[in-house]
Amino acid sequence: MCGAPCQPTIRTFRLNPLIVDNLQPKAGFSVIAATSDGPDAAEYADRLARVRAAMAERSLSALVVADPANLYYLTGYNAWSFYTPQCLVVPADGDIRLFARAMDADGATNTTWLPADRIDGYPEELVHRPDAHPYQWIARRAVETGVLPPDGTIAVEGDANFFSVRGYQALTAGVPGASFQDSRELVNWVRVVKSPYEQQMLRIAGTVTDGAMSTALAAMEAGRRQCDVVADIMHAQAAGTAEHGGDYPAIVPMLPTGKTAGTPHMTWSDQPFVVGEATTIEVAGVYLRYHVPLARTVVFGTPERRLAALADTITEGMAAALAALAPGATPHQAHVAFTDVISREGFTKESRIGYSIGIGYPPDWGERTVSLRAHDDTELVAGMAFHVILGMWMDGWGYELSEPVLITDQGAERLTHQEQTLTVKA
Amino acid sequence: MCGAPCQPTIRTFRLNPLIVDNLQPKAGFSVIAATSDGPDAAEYADRLARVRAAMAERSLSALVVADPANLYYLTGYNAWSFYTPQCLVVPADGDIRLFARAMDADGATNTTWLPADRIDGYPEELVHRPDAHPYQWIARRAVETGVLPPDGTIAVEGDANFFSVRGYQALTAGVPGASFQDSRELVNWVRVVKSPYEQQMLRIAGTVTDGAMSTALAAMEAGRRQCDVVADIMHAQAAGTAEHGGDYPAIVPMLPTGKTAGTPHMTWSDQPFVVGEATTIEVAGVYLRYHVPLARTVVFGTPERRLAALADTITEGMAAALAALAPGATPHQAHVAFTDVISREGFTKESRIGYSIGIGYPPDWGERTVSLRAHDDTELVAGMAFHVILGMWMDGWGYELSEPVLITDQGAERLTHQEQTLTVKA
Repeated sequence: MCGAPCQPTIRTFRLNPLIVDNLQPKAGFSVIAATSDGPDAAEYADRLARVRAAMAERSLSALVVADPANLYYLTGYNAWSFYTPQCLVVPADGDIRLFARAMDADGATNTTWLPADRIDGYPEELVHRPDAHPYQWIARRAVETGVLPPDGTIAVEGDANFFSVRGYQALTAGVPGASFQDSRELVNWVRVVKSPYEQQMLRIAGTVTDGAMSTALAAMEAGRRQCDVVADIMHAQAAGTAEHGGDYPAIVPMLPTGKTAGTPHMTWSDQPFVVGEATTIEVAGVYLRYHVPLARTVVFGTPERRLAALADTITEGMAAALAALAPGATPHQAHVAFTDVISREGFTKESRIGYSIGIGYPPDWGERTVSLRAHDDTELVAGMAFHVILGMWMDGWGYELSEPVLITDQGAERLTHQEQTLTVKA
Repeated sequence: MCGAPCQPTIRTFRLNPLIVDNLQPKAGFSVIAATSDGPDAAEYADRLARVRAAMAERSLSALVVADPANLYYLTGYNAWSFYTPQCLVVPADGDIRLFARAMDADGATNTTWLPADRIDGYPEELVHRPDAHPYQWIARRAVETGVLPPDGTIAVEGDANFFSVRGYQALTAGVPGASFQDSRELVNWVRVVKSPYEQQMLRIAGTVTDGAMSTALAAMEAGRRQCDVVADIMHAQAAGTAEHGGDYPAIVPMLPTGKTAGTPHMTWSDQPFVVGEATTIEVAGVYLRYHVPLARTVVFGTPERRLAALADTITEGMAAALAALAPGATPHQAHVAFTDVISREGFTKESRIGYSIGIGYPPDWGERTVSLRAHDDTELVAGMAFHVILGMWMDGWGYELSEPVLITDQGAERLTHQEQTLTVKA
């Protein structure tokens, strides 16, 4: 097909390891006041203390944090820079230290409370090279500055999206005397219970979500191109409300339609919506990286009987699940409450019915900790937040209804306020 | 700060390895006609043949492809499902095989040309569990179906974003007799030279980019909230043109403004644009996952003399760089051409001046192969595409000008058509 040579001629360039070792961090970071929108210093101190308490339980000398949501949680650092290696190193005691690409490190103090002298920028020459990796430099610098003990027990985020295998291999080779282990979502687990500040962020994000979903439900018309409806939704997500501007969601609007409604994670095309077909819509409102996702289903014209029947059952199942979400209960119990309702009507659902939410970065707004499913016996406590999503994906059709909720002493507080029904449009 | 316990009580649930081994793939995938918008069967066959030729050069028995852009390139598979493990296994000979989460595998035939019997869905129970990993199941199933030879030489994508360390460890443990190595962007390098079909996709994406940038330049007004301008940009990106609807970009609009314009990857806030400050805007237009990014700079009111002088120099530097991009030349030569211009005016730039573009998924629209910088001596050939981005990030201010181009026999063909100047708004 392609008339050009199979593969371009590449003269691989080899970087002398000694040169890598001698590359110095860029000096002279500019100090700009951090934004005043984030949590206060006491809250950051509390978050770090809780991470260190969990580290101490496992006798860790240091933790390497690469997940951008965890970086944001601990330092406030926020930029679309996670496509090149970056990490925070948390030693058991003493100062923590941030590592990023030089061009990002220069301005990191725009968002993080960390002072500039605790931020290192690795040289631009190391970006996307076949013969060297930024983690070689990071490892050397982290040992040199004392945040990574050369013979310690170091945990890394083994399932984080932006910590690659090659990065891990460069890091471990750079600290050969240390013993490495998987953090097993240590910071994510600390994030599970939200502070009063975080609960407020979620409530604000919920107002953005309500605006985005109302826009979506109004914008959908048979005959309109899917991409034009998405354009309206994304506009609403970014604009937010008059009081609170929207932030970008970790996941773009998903709206599987027609036959593809049987598949949950389809995005959109430029084909029009069709009379008689159902579309599931899943969108999040976001405020300062806090995510509140929401799903609803729209049908053009009279719904098929099987769809209407399923919708009624799921509304009932949602009520049962939400009633079961309270301090002292478990995800397992909420799952049972839901399953009891749908199994009476002959339905089954293989996947979990929800997950913990909070800070999110692409590609996921879930926290990868608590799942609402059978045999998850995490004790629910006030301050947890969940996206309870009842997605029913059949062979060629589907239905979704979700509720984002905050667990309070009174039970599940809804963060959005849309009707819990199938939306039927003419 | 947080009144709740430091960490919720977690009763970790242990999954019996034998149970994991006995979990079966979900049967009965629905077959729905693949979309007609993609490349034809001959082009897919050609792409696979070129990947296998590169594998043969390195005597690989199999390649595990996890990068969503590479999956799309080889199979057409396209969904926002990359936040849970998924991969394509390419054996040296015979059928290739796709692995994804059950709920995604069910509908994968909506987008891929692969028949349903070559797509395996791992059980939902394995998603985000502390005690098991989907790659345990994938490894077992891949060996069972013969695509992973138990004693072969297997390459994995060591620096891909969605192939985690934990996934790698589960995969290697599951095929203990095999020898593993890093693919070193094998598929990405095959993607560097675009077929005539791909060149057409890039030209269409360029029309979406022109619309998005024109919208951005018109929408920016001093006093307007940043988030409202972004809302207009995202609307234009999704809506696309009357002929071609837009797809989602791998990176959200970036518009560092004022003091943060000295930092490239800042997103937006709900603060207003300020008279006298400059803003750099970087956005992409996307069509069927093909990305054409573009950057410009806007200033409200009369620009400072240093900014105007820099803008003139960069316009000249862009002309020099584009003139040097032609078949037979090298990225190194283009870099020298640019550097010669700016160094005459006393400017320096540490980072690369561009990179290869094509298919993109979050969080990056670059291909992680060819960089336009010193000592990259890749031979340029017709069909390559680059984002030539001249980002100048100073201490507290910045300027960006970019051009997305396709290399043809005639040289660099511009994919967008905006004026190459600093935009001054009243």
